[in-house]
Parts: sequence; structure tokens; C-alpha cells
Amino acid sequence: MTSANNRIPVEGADRIMAVAHRLADAARAETLSLFRSPALRPDNKAGTGFDPVTEADRASERAMRAILAAERPEDGILGEEYGVQNGQSGLTWILDPIDGTRAFMAGAPSWGVLIGLSDAQGPIYGIVDQPHLDERFEGGLGRARLISRAGEVPLRSRQGVALAEATLMTTYPEVGSAAELAAFSRVAARARLVRYGLDCYAYALLAAGHVDLVIEAGLQPYDVAAPIAVIQAAGGVVTDWRGGPAHHGGTIIAAGSPELHAEALALLNGD
Amino acid sequence: MTSANNRIPVEGADRIMAVAHRLADAARAETLSLFRSPALRPDNKAGTGFDPVTEADRASERAMRAILAAERPEDGILGEEYGVQNGQSGLTWILDPIDGTRAFMAGAPSWGVLIGLSDAQGPIYGIVDQPHLDERFEGGLGRARLISRAGEVPLRSRQGVALAEATLMTTYPEVGSAAELAAFSRVAARARLVRYGLDCYAYALLAAGHVDLVIEAGLQPYDVAAPIAVIQAAGGVVTDWRGGPAHHGGTIIAAGSPELHAEALALLNGD
Repeated sequence: MTSANNRIPVEGADRIMAVAHRLADAARAETLSLFRSPALRPDNKAGTGFDPVTEADRASERAMRAILAAERPEDGILGEEYGVQNGQSGLTWILDPIDGTRAFMAGAPSWGVLIGLSDAQGPIYGIVDQPHLDERFEGGLGRARLISRAGEVPLRSRQGVALAEATLMTTYPEVGSAAELAAFSRVAARARLVRYGLDCYAYALLAAGHVDLVIEAGLQPYDVAAPIAVIQAAGGVVTDWRGGPAHHGGTIIAAGSPELHAEALALLNGD
Repeated sequence: MTSANNRIPVEGADRIMAVAHRLADAARAETLSLFRSPALRPDNKAGTGFDPVTEADRASERAMRAILAAERPEDGILGEEYGVQNGQSGLTWILDPIDGTRAFMAGAPSWGVLIGLSDAQGPIYGIVDQPHLDERFEGGLGRARLISRAGEVPLRSRQGVALAEATLMTTYPEVGSAAELAAFSRVAARARLVRYGLDCYAYALLAAGHVDLVIEAGLQPYDVAAPIAVIQAAGGVVTDWRGGPAHHGGTIIAAGSPELHAEALALLNGD
């Protein structure tokens, strides 16, 4: 017997999901101890410019890697802060200990902990966790749910919404290159509403059926693995701007329904 | 004996604040009952275009007005949804039952309930309440605090931050008119970090010392009264873009410190 996506046996899936929640719990403890703390100061990863890598970021990833080393030593890891560790199982954990570090620095609760699991074909399971809100969005391996202090609710992306009625989100108003901004703007001009600045939380809101489109560019693999798994499990569609797989990063378009995805994708490509 | 701002006797201030918290509690119940509800549908105030006035918006203001009618019949009211009711006391409650209705519609927790109290000179007390986060920012009449499920903490805006190190927020990337966008961009170009999309929650984050500047245009009096009171009580400075009173609406610049306010104000005016 295999799980919903037929790629992991059910017993293995249960073990995987239990570990994933332990990772998320550990990351919560590390991140919340510094979120909005006076001790929090920006660091500088690149040597120039503003790159707010924080101690919380690194501590969060270290805590998750320690659990994986003990519980899943056969799996690979790709993490934002500490890079690649090859595995032998064919499964790779893809970790962004704090997606939205700029939001984290500003005290805004749109950052999240991203925990994805991929096989050779792409993401099969993910958690998008917002510790300050106590909201954990989980999808894949037969699950699609939001766990919060209010309890558990199924995640279902919104269906039957045309672009003219859709809410579109992106994090940065400049989107990416000039050509990428122009493509985004063709979609934005037809949407009912465009909102900015929510980082990974925008994908969570899409999976939960509150917004209809997220379109971004310049993403890394660790930015997208978990959101892809959660949104697909909730009934949404995620690709790059050419309609191909999105899990390598770069451009991404996530839509609540296949029809809306097709409508927006055509505009991104100039139709 | 009078309260910190010498405009309301202490006994009267205690009564005022007790009523204000009752208003906020009532608005929470009304707004949370519809936030992220499948029943929530956009309405149309203007007859054309997108103006997401919701039932929650109207119900929230009605609930607050009912309390004021019973407890403070001598005070005036200015509310977003139901307009002006003149009073005889010299005090006016300024209510925005849901600031950030677009965020509310998108399921994003950056909307808030704004409850301000003004005398003839301007705002003297305010509450910025975020019901989904269970965070209530209160300032004026001797108070400056954040009340949340984690307890109470004092509100202190960040001091000693120059523009080159500052985090700047605004809700809409277009800001306002072309001239207003140009003025904003002069400040943004010198700031360390610019973030978008947080509605009234940006002012709350400023009062709490997490961000340093909020610069916006096209605001209404009910958008600004409560934020002004909270930020001033926390040690910040709020004016319009000419350095005059901001409580009439229009342009606004809120800064964590007088020095940062002066630095940004000069750039807004082309210096």
C-alpha cells in the first residue's frame, strides 16, 4: 500500500511526517526566541549591502539538521544556510530556516520556516510554518491541512475564480528583471487585486483558499519546495513561467486552479 | 490631577480607556467571526471598481457605536462606514472598523481595528488592534503598551537609527500621485530596507520599535488618528509631509525618533 502520490509507502510516510513536525517544532523554538527580540541584529552574509541573515536563521537550520542526522541519516539535505549534504535514500530535505528574513527583521509575521521533502521527480511533501501566528500548513503524502491553535482545517485552494476576480500576490513590487516586471504587470493589470510583501505566507494563503495567484521571480530551490508540495496537495497548480517544473527555483506561478493557472500563464508569455 | 498629556483628568481617562477596550473587544468579535470565512464576499461601496467593504466592516462599526451611544453619548463620533455624529463634550471617537479591508479579504493579518480619541487639538489616545494576532497596541493618556497573549510590554519606538540603517514601510508601491511617489522614492533610496503591504500594522510595528519609518499618502482621518496617538505615546513623531499636523489625513510620515523624522522630512521636500 502506498500513499496518495504512490511514491512512498504509507508506513514510511507516517515516519517522515512525524520527523517533519519535529523539525518544525525545533525551528519554532529557535526562531521565536529571537523574533522581535532587542538582541536581534542584522548580519551580513555577502560582505556588502543588506542581507539580514540572523543568528535565528542559522540556529533554526542547525536544530533541524541535528534531528535529521539522528533520525534520517540516509536522506540528503539542501539548506539555505549550510548547503548540500548528499544522501543515499533518494529523498532530500529542503530547508529554509527563515524564509522572509527581512520580514523577520521588521517584526512582521509573514516569514516562515519551510520544510520540503523531494524525491528525484520533485517535492512530495512540505510544511510552511508561521511560528508567531502558530499556523502550520502541511501538504503531501495524503495530507493537506492547516494546524493552528483553533484546531485543524483542510486546505483547499479556491476554484472557479477567473483572473478578473482574482487576488494576486507577490513579495517585491519590482518582481525581478525589467522583462519579468513587464510580464507580471500584464497579469496584474487584469487581476482584481494585487498585494505585496507577504513572502512565503502568500503561498500558504493560496493553499488555504484566501488568495488565487502568487507570481514571483528570482527564487531559490529552498524557497519553493515546501510551498509547491502544500499547494499541489490543496488542489492548486505550481509551475515556472514557462509551464515547466518550478522546484529548481527561478520564476514561479502558483494558482488556485488549473484554469486560472492557464489564464495567467498565457499573459506572462505575452498572449 | 491630570493625565500625562494634561488634557483629560485621570479619573476621566480611566473611564475613557475602559470604554475603548470594550469597543475593541466588540470589534474583535464581529471581525473574527468573518475573517477567513467562506461566507465573506466583497461588496461594492462605490458602484464601480473594487471596494471590499464587508459585512464585517459595518457590523464592527455598529457594535462600537452601540457601546458609545450607551456609555459616551456626549462624545462625537467619526466612523469610516457611518460618518459623523456631532457631540457636546469636545471629544470625538474616530473609528476605522477594519483598516486594510483588502488584507482582510486576502486573509492576511495586517488589517486592524482603529479606535482613536481626539480633542480640538488632535488625537490624545488610540488603540490599534489586530484581532487574529491577539495584539492590541495602546497609546496615550499615560499609556504606551502592547497587550497580547504573551502578556503586556511597554511600547518604545526605536531611537538612534539614521536613515541609512532604517526600515521604511508603506502599504502601496505606487504610494500616491507621481509627485508623491517621487518624494517617497527619495527617502526609500537612502533607507536600508523598504517593505510594503502592511496597512495599519506598519504603524504598530513602528510604535513597538521594529521598524523606523512609515510614509504614506492619500489617507483619511480615520486611518491616522489611532496610529498617531499610539506612536506619539511610544516616543515617535508623526506629521504630514510638510511637518504639520497629520490627523486631518492626506500625507503622513511617522518616525521612531525626532532626528530620523527630520532627516526623512527633508528628503520628502526635495532637500
